[in-house]
Amino acid sequence: MEKIKIAVDTLGGDYGCEYMMLGISEALAEYDDVDIIVTGKEDEIRKYLTEYKMDESRITIIHASEEITCHDSPVEAIRKKKDSSLVLALNQVKEGNAMACISSGNSGAILAGGQFIVGRAKGVKRTPLAPLIPTLTTPSLLIDCGANVDAKAENLVQFARMGSIYMENIEGVKNPRVGIINIGAEDEKGNALVKETIPLLRECKDINFIGSVESRDIPNGVADVLVCEAFVGNAMLKLYEGVGSMFMAEIKSALMTNFKTKIGAALINKTLKKTLKKYKATDKGGAPLLGLKGLVVKIHGNSKNTEMSSAIAQCRSFIVNDVTGKIVTAFEGGE
Amino acid sequence: MEKIKIAVDTLGGDYGCEYMMLGISEALAEYDDVDIIVTGKEDEIRKYLTEYKMDESRITIIHASEEITCHDSPVEAIRKKKDSSLVLALNQVKEGNAMACISSGNSGAILAGGQFIVGRAKGVKRTPLAPLIPTLTTPSLLIDCGANVDAKAENLVQFARMGSIYMENIEGVKNPRVGIINIGAEDEKGNALVKETIPLLRECKDINFIGSVESRDIPNGVADVLVCEAFVGNAMLKLYEGVGSMFMAEIKSALMTNFKTKIGAALINKTLKKTLKKYKATDKGGAPLLGLKGLVVKIHGNSKNTEMSSAIAQCRSFIVNDVTGKIVTAFEGGE
Repeated sequence: MEKIKIAVDTLGGDYGCEYMMLGISEALAEYDDVDIIVTGKEDEIRKYLTEYKMDESRITIIHASEEITCHDSPVEAIRKKKDSSLVLALNQVKEGNAMACISSGNSGAILAGGQFIVGRAKGVKRTPLAPLIPTLTTPSLLIDCGANVDAKAENLVQFARMGSIYMENIEGVKNPRVGIINIGAEDEKGNALVKETIPLLRECKDINFIGSVESRDIPNGVADVLVCEAFVGNAMLKLYEGVGSMFMAEIKSALMTNFKTKIGAALINKTLKKTLKKYKATDKGGAPLLGLKGLVVKIHGNSKNTEMSSAIAQCRSFIVNDVTGKIVTAFEGGE
Repeated sequence: MEKIKIAVDTLGGDYGCEYMMLGISEALAEYDDVDIIVTGKEDEIRKYLTEYKMDESRITIIHASEEITCHDSPVEAIRKKKDSSLVLALNQVKEGNAMACISSGNSGAILAGGQFIVGRAKGVKRTPLAPLIPTLTTPSLLIDCGANVDAKAENLVQFARMGSIYMENIEGVKNPRVGIINIGAEDEKGNALVKETIPLLRECKDINFIGSVESRDIPNGVADVLVCEAFVGNAMLKLYEGVGSMFMAEIKSALMTNFKTKIGAALINKTLKKTLKKYKATDKGGAPLLGLKGLVVKIHGNSKNTEMSSAIAQCRSFIVNDVTGKIVTAFEGGE
């Protein structure tokens, strides 16, 4: 059996090597067909390798003498810190030793490194960052939330196709509903970009385009793939997180108001936590940067072992289902 | 004493004339210096005039034989339904009989009517819709959320100025902090529009520009005025509402899970409602369409009396403080 090789950058996240290694050990226990290439500080990695009793034959260690932090300028860091854990991990994909790479480090550097080091797949003009966002029903893929602002209509059409392929193959959604983020429901609404994109999407026979989606309806799960330009997507994604945190803070503070509310809080605590768990979405993997020659997955800076093992499962699924190959095939006709 | 005259469209909202008239009666009781011009169905208006024992000398009734509904195409409706309650109310501002107009009707028609009927004030190039959004601290003005998509940098600079003047005069915020919505905190981040706008804002001596704001931080109340292009603003505003509703729905459903959580719910209900009340924001008036020759305020379609009386207070404050005059003065140098 040929092993699925995934590169993991253990530095750059808030919790350091320890939790990344724990996540790796969990994933290795679950998937026999996966091997991991780990980049980071060798002594640290070896320490947790022993501590978590991991099978050394399934781990390749690459020592990094440098680290890219959140204070580094992304493009400069990728160019200059050649021996950083992130660059080393991305190099593994570039050189074909790994098929995917996961990092919890500097977001901008991950995006820049994905494009500059791994490179775009054949036919892909822009590589969108596409996180899953939780809704009242099933999660939706918000594509693009990345650093490629000021996209053109043809880019948005590619995002729609890549998003559909991702949702079908990774999330198992049959005939995924594709909507475009707009300021109204009718086709004549929108800015110049959206008005130009809508007729192009209507022409695509390989996607299930359902028209415009107003962002008010996103939380109802009205579409599986939400297409938008990266500036809009980034603003919405961060607002989604921000408003979520705001409500959590308000509710917590309300529950701690007095003795009566504290008793109430004790009674509802378990159920409420269970209900709101999906908004933390630790088990959904990270945000994939799509359309590259290999897969690059960005996980949150505050990720722990569960996020890491989920991201490994996500990469495995991406590779097993040959999503990159399917994207390239889908774009062949359109070039 | 010269009276402050405000035109109110009583049709087009979800709750009809009854609640609009109740809101008017409350505002008249509070403010001696305000008179109202009411447009709508005369017989209905007269009915509530009597029922709420209102002072007829302070009310002028203009009968409307037509009504613009949410199904009407905005621009067409404004052009063709000349005898609709909305067009009649806007005409009162155009003709100088009223200084402001309030409507809970078709949003697009209100925006179109404001521009086509009332018209832009001297020096104003675009008229932004600028609602206040609740945060963990004080509300922020999100400018523009309207229908004027694809704005230019010079428009965004005008929005920053108008927003500052509004927050200083209507909300009483001294030296309001102006931020621009961006995908990162640094000046080199952004799309082409934002990158072009930032240096222009840094040059403005009459505003307190604090730089880029990531939408994740909006709920923390990091800026008093949040400048953005209308497509982005509209997407964020609607998402804000949508995510709010989603959390309310999730919490309600969690609280109703079983006997234990229902008891808990009873204990926290009052406090939780009080905490979350500000997110309904019924007492903050409506969304002003700024930069017109008079003020046009759009209140939610589901507005009742409290929203109406707050919007009248908001219009009164706008007029007493001569916000339009201050905007015109601020723009004179820049033309």
